[in-house]
Amino acid sequence: MNIILLSGGSGKRLWPLSNEIRSKQFIKIFKNPEGECESMVQRVYRQIKEVDPDANITIATSKKQVSVINNQLGDSVSVCVEPSRRDTFPAIILASAYLKSKKNVSEDEAVIVCPVDPYVSTDYFRSFLKLYDMTVNGKHNISLMGIEPTYPSEKYGYIMPATKAEKADVSYFIEKPDKLDAEKYISQGALWNGGIFAFRLGYILDIARKNIGSIDYDTIFEKYDELKNISFDYEVVEKEDALKVMRFSGEWKDIGSWNTFAEEMYDKVIGKAVLDDACLNTNVVNYLNIPVLCMGCKDMIIAASSDGILVSDKEHSSYMKPYVNAFNQQVMYAEKSWGTFTVLDVQENSMTIRVELLPGHSLHYHSHNLRDEVWNVVSGTGRTIIDGKENTVHAGDVISLKAGCRHTIIADTELRIIEVQFGTDIDVNDKEKHVLYG
Amino acid sequence: MNIILLSGGSGKRLWPLSNEIRSKQFIKIFKNPEGECESMVQRVYRQIKEVDPDANITIATSKKQVSVINNQLGDSVSVCVEPSRRDTFPAIILASAYLKSKKNVSEDEAVIVCPVDPYVSTDYFRSFLKLYDMTVNGKHNISLMGIEPTYPSEKYGYIMPATKAEKADVSYFIEKPDKLDAEKYISQGALWNGGIFAFRLGYILDIARKNIGSIDYDTIFEKYDELKNISFDYEVVEKEDALKVMRFSGEWKDIGSWNTFAEEMYDKVIGKAVLDDACLNTNVVNYLNIPVLCMGCKDMIIAASSDGILVSDKEHSSYMKPYVNAFNQQVMYAEKSWGTFTVLDVQENSMTIRVELLPGHSLHYHSHNLRDEVWNVVSGTGRTIIDGKENTVHAGDVISLKAGCRHTIIADTELRIIEVQFGTDIDVNDKEKHVLYG
Repeated sequence: MNIILLSGGSGKRLWPLSNEIRSKQFIKIFKNPEGECESMVQRVYRQIKEVDPDANITIATSKKQVSVINNQLGDSVSVCVEPSRRDTFPAIILASAYLKSKKNVSEDEAVIVCPVDPYVSTDYFRSFLKLYDMTVNGKHNISLMGIEPTYPSEKYGYIMPATKAEKADVSYFIEKPDKLDAEKYISQGALWNGGIFAFRLGYILDIARKNIGSIDYDTIFEKYDELKNISFDYEVVEKEDALKVMRFSGEWKDIGSWNTFAEEMYDKVIGKAVLDDACLNTNVVNYLNIPVLCMGCKDMIIAASSDGILVSDKEHSSYMKPYVNAFNQQVMYAEKSWGTFTVLDVQENSMTIRVELLPGHSLHYHSHNLRDEVWNVVSGTGRTIIDGKENTVHAGDVISLKAGCRHTIIADTELRIIEVQFGTDIDVNDKEKHVLYG
Repeated sequence: MNIILLSGGSGKRLWPLSNEIRSKQFIKIFKNPEGECESMVQRVYRQIKEVDPDANITIATSKKQVSVINNQLGDSVSVCVEPSRRDTFPAIILASAYLKSKKNVSEDEAVIVCPVDPYVSTDYFRSFLKLYDMTVNGKHNISLMGIEPTYPSEKYGYIMPATKAEKADVSYFIEKPDKLDAEKYISQGALWNGGIFAFRLGYILDIARKNIGSIDYDTIFEKYDELKNISFDYEVVEKEDALKVMRFSGEWKDIGSWNTFAEEMYDKVIGKAVLDDACLNTNVVNYLNIPVLCMGCKDMIIAASSDGILVSDKEHSSYMKPYVNAFNQQVMYAEKSWGTFTVLDVQENSMTIRVELLPGHSLHYHSHNLRDEVWNVVSGTGRTIIDGKENTVHAGDVISLKAGCRHTIIADTELRIIEVQFGTDIDVNDKEKHVLYG
C-alpha cells in the first residue's frame, strides 16, 4: 500500500504540551504493546506496519516537523516537506508528485491519504487493504472511508451512502450538523467522514497537470504557492461524481481536543503530581520538574510545560484556541534533529537555555550577530568547533562564544549544556548558518 | 507600647508560595494605602506604627527569617533571634529577656505579645492602647484579647468572660469546639481567643528566674533548649488565676489557610494568568514567568512558584499540609539579606540558579568542597573577590570558581547572575564561610 500521512496541526489545541513546533501528534501519552510511551504519529505508523509490513508510507509535513518526525520514526522514514504551510489540496498534490518523482510509484497504483491523528484500533488500518483494492480495481475515481456513527456528533462531517452495503456510491455530503440533524441523517444511514481519500496516483497527477502544468515534484515545490489554498474536499471530492464509500464499524476517534486526548492517556497522571482523594475524573500531565498538587479537582485537565500551565474544566478545554493565540509567546521547548532545547529563564538582556544533544549529533555550524553566548557543559563529552578550530570538551568546561564567531558542538556521548545568551537584542532569528569544511 | 510580634510559621499552609524559608507572613498579596504590595508582617508593622509611632516593636523569630524581615521592614527593625524553632513559651521568655537585656525596658512596663499574622483593621491595634493601660495599672497578671464572634467557628479557641463588660475576669477557656458547642458557648457570651498576651515585663522575668535561673538574654539564648517546649497558653495562662480579658468587636481574621488568604488578596489574579468567562470565584497567584490559562474553574485556588503548582478547590485547600510535607523538596526560591535566589534547573550532576543581588549587598565570603561553580553575569556591575583578589565584573563576564576557592561578589548596581554548579555531590550544606580581611 502507498500511504500519505498528512501531518498538520496548528499545535494550539493541546497547549501547553503542543506549540508552534511540537504538534499534538508528537506528544507521547499512549503506550505501545511493549509498554513504552508512544505518540500519535508513532502509534499510527506502527499500526500500519503491523497490517502491511511493506507499506510505503510518506509523511507530508512542514519543515518545522521534520526533526521531530525523524526522532520519533527514525531517519529512514520518507518525508515530503512542504515549502509553506497550506491547506490539504496543495499538500496532497505535492505529496502525490513526490511519490511519482522520488519514489517511482506507478500511476496505476493506488494511494491512501490519511490524517496522522486518528485514534483507532488496528482493524481500521486492516480495512485499508480492502479500500486499496477497491480503488485499484474499481471504475470510480475516489474512495472514501465512512465510519458507522456511535452517537449524533456535531463535530464531524457526514457522508450519505446510496445503500447500506459495505461499499456504496456516495449520495451527498453533510457538513457538521447540529445534534437534531445528525440524529435524522444517522437514521437515514449517514456515516462519519473519516477524512480518508484513496485514488489511483494517475488520477491526482492529471489534476496537477491541469493546475500547474507539471507532475514533477521539484517544479511543484517551486510553484507551491501558486496552487489554490483550499481543502481537498472542496476542490476535488465535492466536484467528483465517481465516488465510493467503504463502511467501517470499529473503534475510531478524532483526538482533536484535550477532552478526547485525556480519555486515551495511558495513565491519568503523567509526571510529578499528587491528587487527593477528593479528585474525580481529573487528568494531569506535568512536564515541569516541580510537583503539582491537586485537591478536590473534578472533571479537570491540568497540564504544565515550559510553555505554560493549563487548568481547565474538561468541557471548556475545547475553547482554548483564541486564548492560546493571544499569548503569542516564544517557543520554550522544542525537539530538534540533534536533541532538545528548553528555555529556563528569560530576562531583559539575557536568556538561559538547557540544550541536550543526542550522541553522534551536532548543532548546525552557525554564528550570531548581536549576542554573545556561554556554554556551561554540565554532562557528557564532545567537541567544539569555533572559527574552524576543534577542541574536546567535557562536563565542567565553560566555552565563551563572542558575537560573530562561528561555532558548533558535536556530542560524542549524550551532552547537556546550560547556554547563557547575553545581549540587548536576543532574537531567535539572529542566526547565520555556515558551511563547515574539513 | 512594647510589642513582641511572634513570627513563626511552618511555611507549609500556603505552599507553593511559602516554603521552609518563606513563611506566609512574607508573601505580598495585600496593598497598603499608597497602593503598593505589602505582606502580612509589613501590614501589621505599619498598622501598629499608625496607632503608636513610638511603639517599641520586637520581632521574635528564627534565624532563617531574619533576612526577609530586614528586606521587608528595613535593617533598623529589632529582631530577637531564636537559636532553634520551639513553641511559644520559650519564645516569649527569650523575647522578654531581650527587651530587658538589649532594649533596657523596665520591669514595670507592660509588653503585648501578638502573632504576626492577624488580618485586622487598624482599630484592633488602637485597642492595644487600652490593653496596655489595663496591664500596667491593673492588679491582675495577664490581659487577653477576646474577639466578639461573628459565627460559630470550629477553628478558634474561646474565652469565657465573667461578665459582658469591656474588661472582665476570665471564667474559663474552651479549646476548639464543634459547631454546636460553639453556638452554645457564644450564646453564653464566649469570645474568640485572639492569641494576645499582655503582662508586666517583671511578671514574665520572674518565671524566667524560676525556670532557668537567669533573666539575661545571652544566658537564656545559650540554655534555650532547656526550656520546656510548650505553648505559653498551657504553661502560663492556664495556670494563672489573675487574668482579665478585653473585648474587641471589630474586623479580625486569622489568615491561616489558602481559603482565608484568598479572600484578602488585593487582586484575584496576581502574575501572568488568563481566566475565561466561565471561571467563578477563582484566585490565581503565579510567580512563574510562564502564563497560566484557567477555563471553567469554579471556587478554586491556583498558585504557581518555583516550588510547585497548587490546583485546589477552595474548601479542600485547608487539608494540604500532609501532602506538602511528603514532597520533601529542596527550597527553590528564597529571599536573603542580599537579594534572592531561584533554582532554574536541577540535573543529576548540576544545578542552575538565578542569583539577584541588591545594590550595595554581597554574598558571604565562602567556599565549597565538592563543587565547581560558574558565574555568568547577565546584568549589572560589581566586584568579585576570589582568594583575596578583587576584580570588577559586569554583564557578559563569566567567572570560573573551582572547588576550594574562596569567593564572594559585591553588587555595585543591581546584579543578576546565572550560577551553574557542577559536581557529583551538590548539597546546599557544602558551604564554608570565611572571614574577609582588608
